[in-house]
Amino acid sequence: MSARASAREQGGSAQPPTPAAGGPPQPFLRSRWVAAPAHVYELGPAAGLPAGFRAAGVACGIKPSGREDVGLLVCDARAPASAARFTASGTLAAPVLVCQERCRLHALRAVLANSGCANAATGARGLDDAAKTQGAAAIAVGADAAEVALASTGAISHHLPVQAMLQGILAARAQLRADGDGDFQRAIHTTDSSEKRANLELALSGGRVRLSAQCKGAGMISPRFATMLCFIETDAALAAETAELLLGVCVQRSFERATVDGQLSTNDTVILISSGAAGVGVEPHSEDELRFGEALDALLRQLAIMLVADGEGAGRIARVVARGGHEPSVESAARAVANSPLDKCALHGGDPNWGRIAQAVGGALPGTAPLALDIAIEGIRVCGAGTAIDHDEDALRAAAQRDEVELELGLPGEGAETEVFFSDLSHEYVRINAEYTT
Amino acid sequence: MSARASAREQGGSAQPPTPAAGGPPQPFLRSRWVAAPAHVYELGPAAGLPAGFRAAGVACGIKPSGREDVGLLVCDARAPASAARFTASGTLAAPVLVCQERCRLHALRAVLANSGCANAATGARGLDDAAKTQGAAAIAVGADAAEVALASTGAISHHLPVQAMLQGILAARAQLRADGDGDFQRAIHTTDSSEKRANLELALSGGRVRLSAQCKGAGMISPRFATMLCFIETDAALAAETAELLLGVCVQRSFERATVDGQLSTNDTVILISSGAAGVGVEPHSEDELRFGEALDALLRQLAIMLVADGEGAGRIARVVARGGHEPSVESAARAVANSPLDKCALHGGDPNWGRIAQAVGGALPGTAPLALDIAIEGIRVCGAGTAIDHDEDALRAAAQRDEVELELGLPGEGAETEVFFSDLSHEYVRINAEYTT
Repeated sequence: MSARASAREQGGSAQPPTPAAGGPPQPFLRSRWVAAPAHVYELGPAAGLPAGFRAAGVACGIKPSGREDVGLLVCDARAPASAARFTASGTLAAPVLVCQERCRLHALRAVLANSGCANAATGARGLDDAAKTQGAAAIAVGADAAEVALASTGAISHHLPVQAMLQGILAARAQLRADGDGDFQRAIHTTDSSEKRANLELALSGGRVRLSAQCKGAGMISPRFATMLCFIETDAALAAETAELLLGVCVQRSFERATVDGQLSTNDTVILISSGAAGVGVEPHSEDELRFGEALDALLRQLAIMLVADGEGAGRIARVVARGGHEPSVESAARAVANSPLDKCALHGGDPNWGRIAQAVGGALPGTAPLALDIAIEGIRVCGAGTAIDHDEDALRAAAQRDEVELELGLPGEGAETEVFFSDLSHEYVRINAEYTT
Repeated sequence: MSARASAREQGGSAQPPTPAAGGPPQPFLRSRWVAAPAHVYELGPAAGLPAGFRAAGVACGIKPSGREDVGLLVCDARAPASAARFTASGTLAAPVLVCQERCRLHALRAVLANSGCANAATGARGLDDAAKTQGAAAIAVGADAAEVALASTGAISHHLPVQAMLQGILAARAQLRADGDGDFQRAIHTTDSSEKRANLELALSGGRVRLSAQCKGAGMISPRFATMLCFIETDAALAAETAELLLGVCVQRSFERATVDGQLSTNDTVILISSGAAGVGVEPHSEDELRFGEALDALLRQLAIMLVADGEGAGRIARVVARGGHEPSVESAARAVANSPLDKCALHGGDPNWGRIAQAVGGALPGTAPLALDIAIEGIRVCGAGTAIDHDEDALRAAAQRDEVELELGLPGEGAETEVFFSDLSHEYVRINAEYTT
């Protein structure tokens, strides 16, 4: 991956596009933990979808608030290529089961998504309901049912309001537009409080291509082999195998490294669709495959960090980087810190309570005492080989109160490294989730 | 174990003792999840320790509040027997390492405990500090250093104030009393807000014996193979092997089934000491061993439930019982629900949000979809074979708002069963742990 230096700051070898009128108030690829490649340019939120895509989002009455709750995304290409990733939960939602069992996931042509109802723990009726809406969406967009992916989010255990959904599908079909991505995103949001979408342009050797994504997620976030809802579109021409390869790698480096509350969802879904409408191919093992992969990587990492930053009640986020000689230990240690309610409360309070970091690592690695653990907070070493190190307390306190805090763990050995992004645990998380009704 | 019917309610075959003056306002063995054996009688909080024990608790200035922070417990018997359990953390505190490496754990004569400083992540100096206080306590009580167990609780990463401790040891020695158990308990409490001690009398075939315990724990509670600080005394004569056997079994059924925040501590310690001063032996494989074990079981289960009920910020507690055919799955499912911040927030709100229970189980058992999961809340079946079941919503809501809520999970198969006690996640937990300073 390229250094943090981005096209925004330094220009690039390729000519930047004209920014959209009234462009974004701040760049999309803005986290210090995301490398913004020099060949990637940000278009504004009004730039619309890549060539070959249309989308819409409408309200059909599932959300009591009356906000948009049904989204439709269509690829008009003759032979789109696609790839998908789903949650590994043992209690998979009906839309995930339908996608996995009935869809041609490498040749998807449309996505029907809804918020306000997860259609999970709904048994055979849930599968029937999902299939009905899949069939209706297929007719509405002129596709085969197996080409229409489903994605749902909202309360678990409620049945899908199929009649409302059917009306929503018809309404959405009438509003499909090349710049419907904002409406589509709103239709998949639940407790989200921030925009999570991007419209990028990439300079490849064969010409310019577009890459867009719309994403949701704020609670029940701890994706494994998949993530929350995220839909990615490109007009570059990718073979299905290339889409599969790049999506797999980039999801592992982004959504799978994020946690809000350590809670794997029943409905996580990520779908990438390539229309090929730009007439620019991305061939396997080419320089352009690398470039496209870098852009997709930056896009998904930024979205993953935005998920965490918009975690329910989140006020401060952190990245924990764990290094050592044993892959499972490094993973366990980083996850343990990221999901520790004590560490998350300390992050909330801006308290550099590193003893709790040591405790969380020790709890995750039973039987290893005495553990030669190193800990640094924002580069300030506080613990070496398991023992407190003298440090500047004022500097440490100031570091712990930044909006983004970096924690480094050192375990014995070398060669393994991982990272996890996480949010704090706040009063607001408790309020949201104590008052949330099934 | 005997039925819930207790000596308090029904009398017993043996004559009950005279209650202590101004006895406890409510019985100690009061949870519906604890079987109170008919041969166990509760004495009041002023009844003092079993014969052969003295204790004290004093303030030596470790706690900024000026409350008691050094406790000393002594067994005056010629040849006491004992057993101990400790945390399995990879970041063991110095007092735990000293106990494990330098103590004769089957023949302990004294315990030196302190609050306000965990002496964890303190390296070689922490071990030296612990050894110094161990040596001082040994001289103070006339024992060998290897007969003095250490236990600490409080902030991790701070060094033990050895000089203050030495003064505290001298002061405590001067105050050792047979009824010093209340002071001793206060000296080990930190964020605890309730009493967690008991003085019981047991009718054995050879005569009456006493059983007492003092316990602390409110946060960083998820014991594994051990628990928080708990000290148990009896004047029955147990061989060390019997103490070891009974303590091991009873800790597994009590503290190891409790969680407040899923956070294994660096300092968990449970110690049982038998003085034998009652002149009543508890022989291996005897009826009395069973009776003593039942009493110890009830005692530790009630204490474990009290730990959870006094969990930081806790307002409501629950027991999750998981049944199925596969031991690891049953354990994972119960733990996942008990440690899910979403489920804990729902418990806090009295919200019967069982979709989140299904989600937590699914997250703990990846790759098992579709999972034939059954869920009942206070006996009301809400989910059968993974699908919602019609039920009385009003009754369910009322059930979810009780002080103690029972959740039952059914997984495929039969033969395995476990339980976990847990507390809710409240604003108060966040306040305590966001404001708590290292």
